[in-house]
Amino acid sequence: MLKEMNHVKLGMIGLGKMGANLVLNLLNHGHEVAVYDANPEAAKQLAERGAAPAFQLEELVRSLETPRILWLMVPAGDATEQVLESLLPLLSPDDIVIDGGNSHYKDSMKRAARLRERGLHFMDVGTSGGTSGARHGACFMIGGDAECFKLLEPLFRDLAVPDGYYYAGKSGSGHFLKMVHNGIEYGMMQAIAEGFEVLEKSEFDFDYEKTAKVWSNGSVIRSWLMELTQSAFSKDPKLESIRGVMHSSGEGKWTVETALDLKANAPVIALSLMMRYRSLEEDTFHGKVVAALRNEFGGHAVERSKE
Amino acid sequence: MLKEMNHVKLGMIGLGKMGANLVLNLLNHGHEVAVYDANPEAAKQLAERGAAPAFQLEELVRSLETPRILWLMVPAGDATEQVLESLLPLLSPDDIVIDGGNSHYKDSMKRAARLRERGLHFMDVGTSGGTSGARHGACFMIGGDAECFKLLEPLFRDLAVPDGYYYAGKSGSGHFLKMVHNGIEYGMMQAIAEGFEVLEKSEFDFDYEKTAKVWSNGSVIRSWLMELTQSAFSKDPKLESIRGVMHSSGEGKWTVETALDLKANAPVIALSLMMRYRSLEEDTFHGKVVAALRNEFGGHAVERSKE
Amino acid sequence: MLKEMNHVKLGMIGLGKMGANLVLNLLNHGHEVAVYDANPEAAKQLAERGAAPAFQLEELVRSLETPRILWLMVPAGDATEQVLESLLPLLSPDDIVIDGGNSHYKDSMKRAARLRERGLHFMDVGTSGGTSGARHGACFMIGGDAECFKLLEPLFRDLAVPDGYYYAGKSGSGHFLKMVHNGIEYGMMQAIAEGFEVLEKSEFDFDYEKTAKVWSNGSVIRSWLMELTQSAFSKDPKLESIRGVMHSSGEGKWTVETALDLKANAPVIALSLMMRYRSLEEDTFHGKVVAALRNEFGGHAVERSKE
Amino acid sequence: MLKEMNHVKLGMIGLGKMGANLVLNLLNHGHEVAVYDANPEAAKQLAERGAAPAFQLEELVRSLETPRILWLMVPAGDATEQVLESLLPLLSPDDIVIDGGNSHYKDSMKRAARLRERGLHFMDVGTSGGTSGARHGACFMIGGDAECFKLLEPLFRDLAVPDGYYYAGKSGSGHFLKMVHNGIEYGMMQAIAEGFEVLEKSEFDFDYEKTAKVWSNGSVIRSWLMELTQSAFSKDPKLESIRGVMHSSGEGKWTVETALDLKANAPVIALSLMMRYRSLEEDTFHGKVVAALRNEFGGHAVERSKE
Repeated sequence: MLKEMNHVKLGMIGLGKMGANLVLNLLNHGHEVAVYDANPEAAKQLAERGAAPAFQLEELVRSLETPRILWLMVPAGDATEQVLESLLPLLSPDDIVIDGGNSHYKDSMKRAARLRERGLHFMDVGTSGGTSGARHGACFMIGGDAECFKLLEPLFRDLAVPDGYYYAGKSGSGHFLKMVHNGIEYGMMQAIAEGFEVLEKSEFDFDYEKTAKVWSNGSVIRSWLMELTQSAFSKDPKLESIRGVMHSSGEGKWTVETALDLKANAPVIALSLMMRYRSLEEDTFHGKVVAALRNEFGGHAVERSKE
Repeated sequence: MLKEMNHVKLGMIGLGKMGANLVLNLLNHGHEVAVYDANPEAAKQLAERGAAPAFQLEELVRSLETPRILWLMVPAGDATEQVLESLLPLLSPDDIVIDGGNSHYKDSMKRAARLRERGLHFMDVGTSGGTSGARHGACFMIGGDAECFKLLEPLFRDLAVPDGYYYAGKSGSGHFLKMVHNGIEYGMMQAIAEGFEVLEKSEFDFDYEKTAKVWSNGSVIRSWLMELTQSAFSKDPKLESIRGVMHSSGEGKWTVETALDLKANAPVIALSLMMRYRSLEEDTFHGKVVAALRNEFGGHAVERSKE
Repeated sequence: MLKEMNHVKLGMIGLGKMGANLVLNLLNHGHEVAVYDANPEAAKQLAERGAAPAFQLEELVRSLETPRILWLMVPAGDATEQVLESLLPLLSPDDIVIDGGNSHYKDSMKRAARLRERGLHFMDVGTSGGTSGARHGACFMIGGDAECFKLLEPLFRDLAVPDGYYYAGKSGSGHFLKMVHNGIEYGMMQAIAEGFEVLEKSEFDFDYEKTAKVWSNGSVIRSWLMELTQSAFSKDPKLESIRGVMHSSGEGKWTVETALDLKANAPVIALSLMMRYRSLEEDTFHGKVVAALRNEFGGHAVERSKE
Repeated sequence: MLKEMNHVKLGMIGLGKMGANLVLNLLNHGHEVAVYDANPEAAKQLAERGAAPAFQLEELVRSLETPRILWLMVPAGDATEQVLESLLPLLSPDDIVIDGGNSHYKDSMKRAARLRERGLHFMDVGTSGGTSGARHGACFMIGGDAECFKLLEPLFRDLAVPDGYYYAGKSGSGHFLKMVHNGIEYGMMQAIAEGFEVLEKSEFDFDYEKTAKVWSNGSVIRSWLMELTQSAFSKDPKLESIRGVMHSSGEGKWTVETALDLKANAPVIALSLMMRYRSLEEDTFHGKVVAALRNEFGGHAVERSKE
């Protein structure tokens, strides 16, 4: 199949923050990369860095020798589904599609089966490490055919930090691991954030950048997230310019839903998610109900709405 | 000691919402009540309803025959401590002091010991049922001397709804029960409120007053709190006039602290309390930290502060 | 359509604890009830109480005049689906199918649409109040056609306690309300249970039956669940004969999943569910991981498995 | 005061896992260390490594030149208090006592005031990094006099990893930071553990050592705790030899209590602690109550106790 993996040509579809950085990372390691994005500007920019730009999916596919390697780095859900829908008719037997995005593992299991029926290969690859990781060394959790993985392994070796990839087994296992990874991430971030919340309300006058720095060096809780906390405070010592609105992109929710399905205990991950939802609202209906009830039975004063 | 309990004269100290209603309840049952409040207006108003007003603690104490019964209905903490401090020198052996407020059970245990040394009796009485209960039939959780309780029992029988008082044992047990009662109350209120939060965000168009009404009649979750929920929605169908700021007065916190001391599981009570604290803030520091972190590793946009 | 609702003949499918008690309740109010259960013994027993037994679905359907009323009281999920599958070919236009079980509201929405296509009516009816409520007066949350509800209203009036039914609107709204009702129930039960957990670990020696009794009379937390708590303790003062394994039947989980979908805050309901899952296990994998980690960084001793 | 800090002689009191390793670390950096422990064996062992053993507190104190530096590394609470009680009469003005243990920050504030009255200095120093950190480079969070810190700084520089110490300000701030550090640690550990709980209950067959390894390399959740997780799984791939009993030593509880006092949101830290308490019990009273209630209203079967 793929003999000369030291020098591969692959097609990257989706050139957002993650996709573009993976392309640069691949180019750096001497691979050839054909690139495509719905926005032609993205391909043009990477062309300047050495990638081969394509402005149609067909063009991208035609530019690759079979068996082709196509790496999807597009938002999970509809976007991934649509790209796949357009892509499949263009492919030839033994071509490999890698979904490096944050797809739900159940979708990946279905997609692997769908591609298998057509003689194609589907690899679900969870990617972690943020944009800097994509550029300089990421972390990959990989599911799919073992044989396929063997072929692609040199690619992952180049893209990852040392020991930064793991072939986890059958289809779905890669995205399952990434999902749970993000669930853990939610919990770790909330734990760190709660710690600083307690510091902020205390009688002491801590320097948060220095606090995050000392906790990044030698402590039990040293971690990349703590280093990032230090970095954030170095830019804005009290985070005064930022609102505490915590968005989420789905994997945390999937982790909780999966935990419920499996009757697995995950209270901390669940709470971390719920605090994010809480942060999206300035006032809550449940708060109104409790305030109204306190007024009903105890005559406790309620605060009136501003308008 | 107290022989003729069918007709008692006692002194009520503290004529707020709860104290005043208990006085009216007592008068209704044919008891004589001497009343005192730091605010003389409160005593005057109850005088019009048949109470014997006093404008000094000394005056109140002097107006009672020994052994006296003095019922404190003042805010827990410093206020209770100060009244007690002023009161003790005025009392005679065998006088009974009832603390009907929301004192911490450990304070009540200490006070009982302190009074015992002086030959006085201290009863810790948790009172529930809200202001309407105080007026028309409340619920009492009673700790202190068994003998003392026997003497006071006719009084509790008159003030409570049928089966609405329980002598729980040694000093502190009454306020301990009241504390835990309030912890349960926090959890029940939050559970009800979360239910309506889910309804409010759903695709359906529920009438909340009718929902609370049907849940108050025949359902597993029928309860006084659900009836109060119905009452609240009858006044303001979407609670639009109320802000969801959930204050708290201490017993919920004490329940959680006590649970932690006892290594007793109380996650729901703890969370109910924490959601109350959350509601006091428009934005949170932990939210800022999480938002900043998401920006650091994933380049996710943060929302900027309004100013 | 149904003119003489004071005297109705309907078919009850599913004669378990809930179904059988509803039949007796209906018979009590002078209605005629044809009854069917996969287990013929159940129909025979109700025949002795005045119901018309059927031993085949066809027989049941044939015994009713059109437009027929068929009340399903079978377990949610596959069982309900199978009964419906068998039933639909036997029905005539304008027949009404009531699903009184705990179906997921989204299933009920699909079923209503499916029946509508065939000219049939589907009503989703959440039933609360336990087995005693089914027998003597239950609580119904009703979704479906408004016109259909009008016709059935006398039936609900007979079966429910006063004010114990609510027509909530379009299909799905009845089962949605029941789902959320059960979510609230989980939270209330956990809150009550945590309270007794704190009492049990305290230094005091409370009589739990008397505690639950006083809390059932006049207190803010008086509720049917508290009365049932009293009843449970009256049979087993320390619940020594019972293991604390908390099973669950689905609605609590659905409430949490729905809350997550709606980004509605429901931490207390979520935690109540997770504590139930936790109770199903004697040991946990997450516990092993934490214990192992404490050993790794601090040399803290781990407890060894028993075998 | 202390001029020649490149070469210091200090006294270490408490030679447990942490204390002994700090001594070795100090010796390694060319400092002289006099050592004392209630157990004379501990001092003897360190004497073989170059420390100056003392078998009485007096002996230890006498062996040091004034102004002395005494580093306490004993269990928080009574043990620390007793050592301090014995030590204080032996000291001379300007001597410095370092409490490197896990004392409550409020105790440290009181102790600093107590020593100040006697002309002594008290530094509260939170130590993190586990036993290996104590030996090869730890993390210190330091509160107390700024001047005193300046004098001791070379010592901390030698004992810590680079950037691994932070002078946080007035007395108490060091132990406050350590307390919150441990609260964060509880949350991070629980988050990681919940992730593996979900993996363990999934349909996949993950190698947990390899999972922890890939998550330790390049991922967003890379951290020392994840490396320790890898280490734990390398010794016991499914942790079958370990029971999931999660003990705790106090700082997590203090963090939650402090958060409650400050009305700071810390649901994840609180839940992490409560899951630890839950793990100490094979069965729970709250579980019994919920199981009994389900039986009461729904006739759901309860599981009977084994005996």
